[in-house]
Amino acid sequence: MSKIAVVIGNMFEDSEYTKPAQAFKKAGHQLTHIGIKARQTVRGKHKQKPVKIDRAAKDVSPEQFDALLIPGGYSPDQLRVDEDVVRFVKEFVESGKPVFAICHAGQLLVTAQVLDGRKLTGWKSIVQDIKNAGAQFLDQEVVKDGNLISSRSPDDLPAFIAASLKELQDDVASRRAA
Amino acid sequence: MSKIAVVIGNMFEDSEYTKPAQAFKKAGHQLTHIGIKARQTVRGKHKQKPVKIDRAAKDVSPEQFDALLIPGGYSPDQLRVDEDVVRFVKEFVESGKPVFAICHAGQLLVTAQVLDGRKLTGWKSIVQDIKNAGAQFLDQEVVKDGNLISSRSPDDLPAFIAASLKELQDDVASRRAA
Repeated sequence: MSKIAVVIGNMFEDSEYTKPAQAFKKAGHQLTHIGIKARQTVRGKHKQKPVKIDRAAKDVSPEQFDALLIPGGYSPDQLRVDEDVVRFVKEFVESGKPVFAICHAGQLLVTAQVLDGRKLTGWKSIVQDIKNAGAQFLDQEVVKDGNLISSRSPDDLPAFIAASLKELQDDVASRRAA
Repeated sequence: MSKIAVVIGNMFEDSEYTKPAQAFKKAGHQLTHIGIKARQTVRGKHKQKPVKIDRAAKDVSPEQFDALLIPGGYSPDQLRVDEDVVRFVKEFVESGKPVFAICHAGQLLVTAQVLDGRKLTGWKSIVQDIKNAGAQFLDQEVVKDGNLISSRSPDDLPAFIAASLKELQDDVASRRAA
């Protein structure tokens, strides 16, 4: 069982949260929703299931979790104005623990300044932002570069979820062996 | 009277279109709404007055206009996946004619790759994108750098509109003198 942090704000792309969340829970993992304010309710672009924020970013650190999920939509744009969310994401990527980033999630990684020299994919509108941040953009359904797993859009969800679940398994195995 | 092109798509920040549009029309200028598809109706984030697209970007060129307005919200993110919109914006900035960019408008300028060495302001979520594109970000209500006039948010609208109207006046005067 892994503890997965989800950084999420208003206007997230509904399926990019609900589908990985469902698959992670089914595999026995535990989710904690991190946002700008604890106890706030955030809503997706398509107004499906709202999400309650468990902890504010200012009150958490990557040490408390095993992996990070960043759903897309306009949630990353809303979250990246918050210094504490940006710091949390930055520290998570730098910790070496798995980070799952889909669609517009790359925007948070740009603001966290953790993309220089990395390989990433993401939604087509942010291609130039990813390149300008010093990363190599790859037009693939999943890109794995070290601890960074990324996908482009909801169409890539099956591959994104499979790659994320495998990474969680490999990560647990390597921690057990250590 | 100047002919002003407005590049606009769904989820524009309503006031960042309606307020400049109203002021420009009141001053006798003419607006043409450019988008991905002609005759499409696009809607703002706050679902106020919808906007009908007059011309598709693929069918227009900067030569047909005197100035360009790029409202913010999530419209620039939606527009910058369209090659023709990006080309139109790129050619407009390079033409030297006035370009008025507010809030998230800078995202379109990043994708159009016209920011290297320029001075710009914009919504706080895109600060790192602006810097990574080679521009100098200035935290001011209006930044004027050559033909580029930019502002940060709806709060800056009075200053943005005043600077834009002045630029239109100066531009007409300089064309008359030429």
